[in-house]
Parts: sequence; C-alpha cells; structure tokens
Amino acid sequence: MDWRNEIVTASDRIDGYVRRTPVMTLGLVSDHAPIEVKLEQMQHTGTFKARGAFNSLLSSDVPKGGVVAASGGNHGAAVAYAAARLGIAAHIFVPELAGPAKIGLIRRTGAALTVVPGVYADALQAAQAHEAKTGAIQIHAYDAPGTVAGQGTCMAEFENQGLEADTVLIAVGGGGLIAGAMAWLQGRRKLVAVEPVTSCALHAALAAGAPVDVEVSGIAANALGARRIGSICFDLAAAQRVGSVLVDDAAIAEAQRALWTEARLLVEPAGAAALAALRSGAYRPEPDERIAVVICGANPAPGPFD
Amino acid sequence: MDWRNEIVTASDRIDGYVRRTPVMTLGLVSDHAPIEVKLEQMQHTGTFKARGAFNSLLSSDVPKGGVVAASGGNHGAAVAYAAARLGIAAHIFVPELAGPAKIGLIRRTGAALTVVPGVYADALQAAQAHEAKTGAIQIHAYDAPGTVAGQGTCMAEFENQGLEADTVLIAVGGGGLIAGAMAWLQGRRKLVAVEPVTSCALHAALAAGAPVDVEVSGIAANALGARRIGSICFDLAAAQRVGSVLVDDAAIAEAQRALWTEARLLVEPAGAAALAALRSGAYRPEPDERIAVVICGANPAPGPFD
Repeated sequence: MDWRNEIVTASDRIDGYVRRTPVMTLGLVSDHAPIEVKLEQMQHTGTFKARGAFNSLLSSDVPKGGVVAASGGNHGAAVAYAAARLGIAAHIFVPELAGPAKIGLIRRTGAALTVVPGVYADALQAAQAHEAKTGAIQIHAYDAPGTVAGQGTCMAEFENQGLEADTVLIAVGGGGLIAGAMAWLQGRRKLVAVEPVTSCALHAALAAGAPVDVEVSGIAANALGARRIGSICFDLAAAQRVGSVLVDDAAIAEAQRALWTEARLLVEPAGAAALAALRSGAYRPEPDERIAVVICGANPAPGPFD
Repeated sequence: MDWRNEIVTASDRIDGYVRRTPVMTLGLVSDHAPIEVKLEQMQHTGTFKARGAFNSLLSSDVPKGGVVAASGGNHGAAVAYAAARLGIAAHIFVPELAGPAKIGLIRRTGAALTVVPGVYADALQAAQAHEAKTGAIQIHAYDAPGTVAGQGTCMAEFENQGLEADTVLIAVGGGGLIAGAMAWLQGRRKLVAVEPVTSCALHAALAAGAPVDVEVSGIAANALGARRIGSICFDLAAAQRVGSVLVDDAAIAEAQRALWTEARLLVEPAGAAALAALRSGAYRPEPDERIAVVICGANPAPGPFD
C-alpha cells in the first residue's frame, strides 16, 4: 500500500472536518530538555479518532443501513460525531467498560447506542452481527486502511507544524494511531509504543511473533484495552522494528496528574500513558535525544462536569 | 510612556521564563465563524500573570527583603513561582476568597503565605504594611508599568502567531491583561472588556468618568474581583474608547462548561468570561467580524485532583 499517498489524500479529504490541533513545548520530564507535545485531545470528541472516522466515512459509499462501529468508547464517539456532521445514521456498540463519560458523549450525538456486557471484543461481535443483519457499513476502530490513513494525518500534521523530535512516543491500544504514524514516517523518526502492563497487545504480539489475545484491565482499559493488536499495526511494527515499553497504572496516574499540575491539561489515563513512559523511566531517552509525545485523549470518567 | 518599546523589551526579558502558549481556531459561537483562541491558561501557574511577574522581577533591583505581592490568588501564584525560579524570597498575601486551589498553588512554590480575612483589597493593605516594615519590593497585581508591560507580551505574542481578528475580547478584573493589550495594540484592533455583572470595576469607572470602588462577588470574584480598576487600564480605556460588556454568573458557567464539552479545556470561571460574552449575546459581533478571545486562567476550585 502507498501509505504516504493514502495519508496525503486523507488529509485533504478531512480538511475542514477535523481540527488542526495545537503543538507546544513543555518541560515535563525532569533532567531532560523540554519535549514537543501535540494536543490532539482537543480534537472533536476529545481524541484523534475523529480523523479516522471522517476519512472512513468520506471515502465510502455509505449504504442505506448507515454506519456501525464497535468501540471502547472513543472511536464510537468519533464515528457518531462524524456521522451526525455528514447526515448519516449511526449505530454504536460499546462495552459497559466504556463508562458514563464516553457513553454520554455518544448519546449526545443522537446516534443509536447499544451497551454490551463485557469488553471491547464483545462489542465488536455485536457490531458485526448488526452489520450482517442491516447491511450497515462497519468502521473498524483501528484495523482498517481508512482508519489507519486517517489517524496517520495526525503525525503528518505534527511534522507540518515543525516537529523536531528524534523520537515520538505514542500510546497503543489496538494500534491505530501508531500504525498511522509508522505508515507516515516510514522510519524517518524513531517511534516508541507505550502500553499499560495490563493491556499490552502489541508487546505480547511482538514477543510471540504474531498477534495473540491478551487480557485487558487497568485504568486505561476503556481506551487502550484491545484484546488483540491490529494486524496493520503489527505488520508495520515488525517491519520497522518499533518496540513497546510498558507502564503501570501508578505511572499513568502520576503523568495524568502532572499534565494538569504543570500545564492545565486534563486528560484521560490513555492520554497520559506516553508521558508516563518518560516520567517513570520506562523509556529513558539519551541526553541529546529530542522527544515528542502525542496527547491522544481527554474523556476522563467522571468528567469535570459529570 | 513608550509602551510598544516597553513591551518589546519585556518580551525579550522574559523569553525562556514564560511559555509561548498555543493558539487555535475553534467553532465556539453558534451562527458565527470559528474564533481564534489563545490558550494562555497553559502559562506557568495557569494564568497570564507569570508574564508580568517575571517582567517585574527581572527589571527590578530586588532588595534583601525580597518580594511581596497581594493577590486574589493567581497573581500571587505567579509571583511566587517567578521568585522561586529566580532564587528570590517571596511573601504572598491572599484573601480567604482565593480558595484552596490557588492557595495550594502558592504553598507549593515554597513562598511565605498569609491568608487575610476579606477580599483582595484587604490583602493589598496587609501587603503594603509588610512592604513598609521589611523593605520588600511590591509587585502590584495590575496597576504598575512593569506588570502591564509584561501582560502586554501576551497580545504581542498572539499577533506574532498570526492573529487575524478584528476584535479581541478579554476578561477584566483589575485590568492588567487588557491594559497590556491596549498598550500594545494602540487601537490597531478593537478590544472589548468583559466583566462579571457582580465585579465590574472598569464598567463602573467608565460610567463615572474615573475609577470608583465597586462591590465584588460572584463565581469569578477570586480572579476578577478587583474593587477598583487600575489607573493605567482606566486611562488607556478612556483614551482608546474601549468599552466593557457585562456577563452574569450563569453565562460564565455556561461558557466554562462549553470549553470543556467542545474542546476539552478546563478553565476557571474568569477564564471563560470572555467567551461568555459571545455565547450569551452580551457582545454581538457583526456577521463578518473576525473574533478572538484570550483564555486567561485555569485554576478552578476545586481542581480535578483536589
């Protein structure tokens, strides 16, 4: 696949529908130079996932049955929002684990919503049944070319905004965001995947040599809790030798608090995971290594107005 | 006073000490084009006030007694932070009204802190007594040239970042931030002061033809609750015919919630006041009028981790 071309096309396609999110430099890692930060949590519906959702919908012939998506919550909110903007009927399936903040976000778009007992994989199964029955088009949360190309626009935009970093850390659940970054960068900068110890589908897949099922739990599970890494992500990571570092819940919570204390950024645990790898020492940059992180989501539960 | 020169000098002086805060375009006002927003709440200590604090300290011969400041909370936090960065002893006086979030912020810098019963004016009196006794240098929260020039760097930076707006709305308490903007712009763009109905020192002064005392209350009072507008601000506003529009607490609360819902910006009431004027209709722009707001503070009480 000509990923660079796909991502350039996606950037043009979603222009005007998604926000160009700000970047800035922040001193968030002690004993290291300030790091570049992309505030992608300011994207529509609070995560980067609006990029993939708009790219998928705008590049598809959407049937009368509309669109269906399964989601830990954030992808569902993004698809529901994009569908509403484009006048498309949407039905979103989320696991109970999604929590009230993410579920409320989906409800407010006017989309049909089914809350499924269990985790993301259970919601995905229900969404697939709905797809088979209604002919609705399904937008996968992370393992579809349209989704990955859409998420890739985030890194393309970051570079367009003057990114200087040698190394970019990105939180990984199913791997859509980092797959987009790998697809865009093609090894031009170092990428580091950051996963919770308790939801580490990429780490397990790289160890096993192929995607394998993992158990998912922990404070970031409703955003990063994919049971199995996407095959697009896995293939790119294996080919580009991108590694995954692990962070525990305490490190994620510490980074989440630090983003508020130091920079008044209120994010969800997943949005702080990449920074947690730096603050906890799970990833130790070289003294002269220029570092960037993507702040990828800000739908904490409860939210400040819940 | 050659304000333009003062502000250019201040910008150079505080470079490296303050953050270049991001700007972005957000669709926050229905039936109007997206507005430009400066995320100055991401400044050190959560408000623009770090600019004036660093400019004042870096341009003064600080005596052995160190520095003293009276503050509704945000200025005190900024002075305490700047003093700590520069190795200067600081003593901050705040009214009880400042609240736990702002008081905690000051405590964490290591500055000496006195909580005074009453409002900002009472804290100012106590700070003046301390100044007389110890010889400490006092940094006024809004009515001193060094403070105003420092705050003026915010608007200079906004222009340097490509500001296109015809009109910029700025929340006003004692008037330091808007005074800096008036001093910088010298009428080149329209400025609109936004004040709470219950803390409207500039509005009252413009009506009376001179600064007068007002009562202060309401949800933004611990940031915008100056009993009397600064004379520097008043003189500039009168000369430049800058007007003040009023917003009630409900409008401020609605705008505060909207900033979270629409853009994941958690701010304090004062930080949402300028936007409240647009969302409530207190200020109705012309259809083709390009609008900007400065998001000036994000020390809500309680904070999300209190």
